[in-house]
Amino acid sequence: MPAAVLSIGTELTRGELVNSNASWLAEELTALGFVVQAHSTVADDVALIADELRRLGERSSVIVCTGGLGPTSDDVTSAAAAQALGVELVRDPSALAHIERLYAARGRHVSEASAQQADFPEGARVLPNPEGTAPGFELTVGRARCFFMPGVPREMQAIFRDSVRPTVGELAERTTHQRHVRTFGLPESQVAELLEGVEEAHEGITLGYRAHFPEIEVKVHARAESAADAEKLALRVTDLVRERLGEAVFGERDDSFAGAVGERLRDRGLTLALAESCTGGMVGAMLTAVPGSSEYLLLDAVTYANSAKTQILGVEQDLLRAYGAVSAECACAMAEGARRAGGSDVAVSITGVAGPGGGSEHKPVGTVWIALARKDEPTRMFRYQLDGDRDRVRTRAAYLALELVRRHAEGRSLDEGPALATCAEFRGA
Amino acid sequence: MPAAVLSIGTELTRGELVNSNASWLAEELTALGFVVQAHSTVADDVALIADELRRLGERSSVIVCTGGLGPTSDDVTSAAAAQALGVELVRDPSALAHIERLYAARGRHVSEASAQQADFPEGARVLPNPEGTAPGFELTVGRARCFFMPGVPREMQAIFRDSVRPTVGELAERTTHQRHVRTFGLPESQVAELLEGVEEAHEGITLGYRAHFPEIEVKVHARAESAADAEKLALRVTDLVRERLGEAVFGERDDSFAGAVGERLRDRGLTLALAESCTGGMVGAMLTAVPGSSEYLLLDAVTYANSAKTQILGVEQDLLRAYGAVSAECACAMAEGARRAGGSDVAVSITGVAGPGGGSEHKPVGTVWIALARKDEPTRMFRYQLDGDRDRVRTRAAYLALELVRRHAEGRSLDEGPALATCAEFRGA
Repeated sequence: MPAAVLSIGTELTRGELVNSNASWLAEELTALGFVVQAHSTVADDVALIADELRRLGERSSVIVCTGGLGPTSDDVTSAAAAQALGVELVRDPSALAHIERLYAARGRHVSEASAQQADFPEGARVLPNPEGTAPGFELTVGRARCFFMPGVPREMQAIFRDSVRPTVGELAERTTHQRHVRTFGLPESQVAELLEGVEEAHEGITLGYRAHFPEIEVKVHARAESAADAEKLALRVTDLVRERLGEAVFGERDDSFAGAVGERLRDRGLTLALAESCTGGMVGAMLTAVPGSSEYLLLDAVTYANSAKTQILGVEQDLLRAYGAVSAECACAMAEGARRAGGSDVAVSITGVAGPGGGSEHKPVGTVWIALARKDEPTRMFRYQLDGDRDRVRTRAAYLALELVRRHAEGRSLDEGPALATCAEFRGA
Repeated sequence: MPAAVLSIGTELTRGELVNSNASWLAEELTALGFVVQAHSTVADDVALIADELRRLGERSSVIVCTGGLGPTSDDVTSAAAAQALGVELVRDPSALAHIERLYAARGRHVSEASAQQADFPEGARVLPNPEGTAPGFELTVGRARCFFMPGVPREMQAIFRDSVRPTVGELAERTTHQRHVRTFGLPESQVAELLEGVEEAHEGITLGYRAHFPEIEVKVHARAESAADAEKLALRVTDLVRERLGEAVFGERDDSFAGAVGERLRDRGLTLALAESCTGGMVGAMLTAVPGSSEYLLLDAVTYANSAKTQILGVEQDLLRAYGAVSAECACAMAEGARRAGGSDVAVSITGVAGPGGGSEHKPVGTVWIALARKDEPTRMFRYQLDGDRDRVRTRAAYLALELVRRHAEGRSLDEGPALATCAEFRGA
């Protein structure tokens, strides 16, 4: 049951606009059980659009099409559809009345250009637009039921919900189900290695991978005879995927890493303070993006200047002079100072050289120290050497700090596991 | 000189990911002078990809293609390109050495699956990947020079800049030029109103708008007989656009708002401290994303808990009890406390109700107080009522705080101008 998404607009082909309509529609069609094999985007050009409609009409059962239905001279989708079918444009009286009503409400007359929004290829079924002036329409091109909608997302989504989904829903076989497993700490290639053989052992299962630095998301896509079977299959394989990837898994589709860490803190009734230097507030921003984070996060001291490290966290000037701000000693003093200043159960500190400047022979760009201070346990310091530009160094450092908090909250060892595999621990401290 | 953009990936055809690569590439190609007539997106399927390559190869002079070059089983782009040309895959020794080097740096061996990232269709030119393991490649399909890159945006962009742009730049007729003007503080409709008539008055000029919440970017696209004329025209109209949009303009294409604010601070030799509550470190993270920000940013005290406000910033408990944390009084005390604790020239504080919970009749979700403390001048407090969900409230609050700092650093009034037009100032303080 292949479906296609066709987007029309020169602002899209020139790249002035990111095409979020196509992904919205593709996700809807996939959820309905269609296999969306292809998306196309073409400029506002009658011949190009007509060609593309004919081509897609030969290979699809459903085409959803957006854009080019407005009142301006570059809105040529209706004309292109008429050309593709070799029919005339016909003005629809009820669509025209709708347009006239909306214009009258704003005290305006309908010009001939605006009235053209009521012109449709002969034989088309008009799809009312509850959110704007330009209606959509449906007709058959080749083998395909073809639905045309405006490009304004709100109008497109309303027409899809009211008129397209009820129609195409009957055409689809609802036999797919998808689950998402989110991980941190393993590179994509290792995730793939750990999941080797899963697809082969489970008929109907496709695994997909998406890298959202520094996370890897695994998608378990199941296809079966019935929707219930597909869901059962997806759940069974998702369990297997979670088992194979172990502690690297932190959640499902809508979970965030910071949210997962926060949940562990809440479960254990622990409070947290942060001391950030090179990450400059990123860890705090990640944690506080989650509603309710004030239950466990008490303080984030972003002590960018050494004077602030001394004043806020009590890091001694002698220590900074002797070891520098990027050192195990400073990380330790920052974490302990943050725990004291915030009055929290746990504190984590981050200090490093994010680059591009500031590196030296002994502390090259990417050197990061992270320390974890806890009640009644010695403070632990970890040294990392991180790859990439400023943004990557900072992002990975923020995740590694949260990973330490997560391990502590879960009562797990701080020394093992995938996320810390590249760390060289400072054992002398 | 038609060019095409081909995106490969089932996560795209299923709509799980918005295809921002296609618009990025289309914009680059358009800026180089190509006419991008069409974008296509196809699933990870050898036959579908090979068909699409052959089809686009007949009608394009250049194809840029992303996705499907990684180490997992759904990465089949190289195989598809080989099939389209009827050639074999050949392993490239220097690409393999590159992959081995990167893996070795992380203490890992290269599995057979990972080694396949060094397999290219016979006759392909390898395009080095400075940002990751999977190199790109170039070959000719039909009439088209065809460039294959990974789907990870940063890797794709690096390969495009290093290897694709220098090659295709010579193929294009450079008769277009594009400039970008970035703004904060005006809604899109008002930006468009202020620029009314500009396109009509300048033959060859197209204006485009892109909303990157809460920024609006204006693109000035110029087309002329020669590249030099196009550039001259674009520059002239860009000046006009900047003039019409006034203080809302903060920079050009690669400038960030936080970077622009930091530059003003550096120009004036001013240092800054922050006290964040509801934004939880976002302002600090934005400022410190800019290299060299340690020159002006001394401290960001993210005092999420009231106890931290008292302990770090000296906000009195009586004040918190009498007025609450979301109040002019608390914002004032936070800003002054941050300036004292950080030892800075200027300090800004943010405290508000980001939602979804925590609102009340007098302080509904979206209520935000921002205060600016300065040397030898009274501290000023501003109240905002912001729309939208938690993320939008926090993001706009962070921008508004930076806007106050920018105005102060530029010696401008704190009371006027577009960005603060919605603020109800607390005049009693």
